Amino acid sequence: VSTPIVIAVDAMGGDHGPSAIVPGVARAAQRLEGGNVRFLLCGDAERISTQLARSKKLSALCEIRHSDLVIASDEKPAQAMRRGKGSSMWNAIEAVKTGDATAVVSSGNTGALMAMSKLILRMAADLERPAIVASWPSVRGSTTVLDVGANVGCSAEMLVDFAIMGEAFHRAVHGVKKPTVGLLNIGSEEQKGHEELREAHRLLREGGLPIAYYGFVEGDDISASTVDVVITDGFTGNVALKTAEGTARYLASEMRLAFTSSLASKIGAMVAQKALKKLKHRLDPNTVNGGPLLGLNGIVVKSHGGANDEGFANAIMVAAHLAQSRFADEIRDNMQQLMTVLAHPTSAGETP
Amino acid sequence: VSTPIVIAVDAMGGDHGPSAIVPGVARAAQRLEGGNVRFLLCGDAERISTQLARSKKLSALCEIRHSDLVIASDEKPAQAMRRGKGSSMWNAIEAVKTGDATAVVSSGNTGALMAMSKLILRMAADLERPAIVASWPSVRGSTTVLDVGANVGCSAEMLVDFAIMGEAFHRAVHGVKKPTVGLLNIGSEEQKGHEELREAHRLLREGGLPIAYYGFVEGDDISASTVDVVITDGFTGNVALKTAEGTARYLASEMRLAFTSSLASKIGAMVAQKALKKLKHRLDPNTVNGGPLLGLNGIVVKSHGGANDEGFANAIMVAAHLAQSRFADEIRDNMQQLMTVLAHPTSAGETP
Repeated sequence: VSTPIVIAVDAMGGDHGPSAIVPGVARAAQRLEGGNVRFLLCGDAERISTQLARSKKLSALCEIRHSDLVIASDEKPAQAMRRGKGSSMWNAIEAVKTGDATAVVSSGNTGALMAMSKLILRMAADLERPAIVASWPSVRGSTTVLDVGANVGCSAEMLVDFAIMGEAFHRAVHGVKKPTVGLLNIGSEEQKGHEELREAHRLLREGGLPIAYYGFVEGDDISASTVDVVITDGFTGNVALKTAEGTARYLASEMRLAFTSSLASKIGAMVAQKALKKLKHRLDPNTVNGGPLLGLNGIVVKSHGGANDEGFANAIMVAAHLAQSRFADEIRDNMQQLMTVLAHPTSAGETP
Repeated sequence: VSTPIVIAVDAMGGDHGPSAIVPGVARAAQRLEGGNVRFLLCGDAERISTQLARSKKLSALCEIRHSDLVIASDEKPAQAMRRGKGSSMWNAIEAVKTGDATAVVSSGNTGALMAMSKLILRMAADLERPAIVASWPSVRGSTTVLDVGANVGCSAEMLVDFAIMGEAFHRAVHGVKKPTVGLLNIGSEEQKGHEELREAHRLLREGGLPIAYYGFVEGDDISASTVDVVITDGFTGNVALKTAEGTARYLASEMRLAFTSSLASKIGAMVAQKALKKLKHRLDPNTVNGGPLLGLNGIVVKSHGGANDEGFANAIMVAAHLAQSRFADEIRDNMQQLMTVLAHPTSAGETP
């Protein structure tokens, strides 16, 4: 029998706490059946037990680690760090540090999760900073975009780090053998964009990394699936992500207006309702839920605060895919290659 | 009788040349009837005359300035500058410089239009750099976003310049008396974002400009109409614009798929076709066409290269609205106030 993979769950995070999270764990457990995956549920033992009582099968896969303390969703990261030790979030992260768990999933306060994870787990390999990943619905399924909010400004090396992390992530989670990678810019010509972007472009093109680097891509390439992985700094990535969400919301409301403006289209809307429901599901944040913080010593997955049980289950699936993959090894190997290139710049084609 | 407003038109630009542009001028002329607006058509006299021959009424409003030379759509700006003197684009811009025209409209090469306009017209008031404006379909009609591509990096002062230009633009073109202005950031808290953003935020909040400054906004606020005018650097603005376009295209294709996946929804699609057409029109680039380059001594409006006659007419309407407004005076007045603040920083609340 193989050693089980243990996923630590912050059972108190998000808008719904254990009442959405434990049913979410149950859904994920069902899908992972036979994969030897177990769960460490961190938080209020009584509330968690009440939820677990519904299923003996699930209870057998779960251990509870009690904590009275919960990090509030609006708490500043600095404050959360000061008073957060022993909270459900802290304990879940710490379980990864001590080896009791391989991955942690939380739908709590993003800033606090980021700060605590960095403090407790520290960065992996020679990676400089963690990045937040978004899985973006796109023509061919899903585009991996990072960073979408952790780092406002990014050096060329950080962007290359993100490319290494994002490529390994896409392979682990979406099963694509050789994901293609693009750098987000405002044109595809070599001379476009920031200095950092051009330098990252050069490193990815000439650094000898075993990555299928495509070159520069533009904003509309994300949903067009031009590449599997799109790399950008956290400021641009966050603006792009929220702009896309806003555009989708705006179009949905315009569509509703269009459909209710005449009797004929009202009938049309009724008939087409099933098709629209399918589309809505495809774009439901719960369906694409599970944004990991990459780059740490351990797998940390952030679920939306408003995620329902299905959403939380999807976040657990992302953590399980990462835990079952060679994700960490691949990043370590590629970082070694990058460090060699950075130490001997001429091998990356720099003029001596 | 008031002095006529003359709009110089680069009749050779874009994918269709005079065969889309002259009919576009005709459409705009019809809408502007009684407004005493005339046109100076720059380009191949024979091709333009052939198009004009269809309408005596239009011919009476137009003058032709012949040129053999056309700037290609894929020409590098530097090359266009070297060999561009006397081209249809050059002549149209020069007409604004000499006073023969008040505004210029071109659907030609954006980079060349920007470079030539800067060279020939120079910056207005104390403005540092021109900005490209996008009119973004949104819940309450249209959100003005700038810069969407002219400037990769922006100082705090440039962002404030853009706020001054964008506010005056939105009033002139959309008739909103006191447009609200927001700075694009990745959170609404004061400590978020780049140093330049925080300094621009301070100047707009405390600089005594007669602008209804709202504060920081996020990507999803653009189509939500949270503010009338959204200010950002050209890199972020360009990525956001293209991401939104990509999202809209992706959703449209998903919708088509949803509607053709079953017989019932096929019927639904047929019945709802009229409603969808209306939506498509609302989002048609031709409907929202007319992105001006703000900040120059004179009005320069860029039309999409692929614009049809309706699209080109809309670009002319933007130029006419700007020409008929107090746009230039308002910018000059606000820039004087800004210069006073920058010269005496304490009046903007800086700690002495």
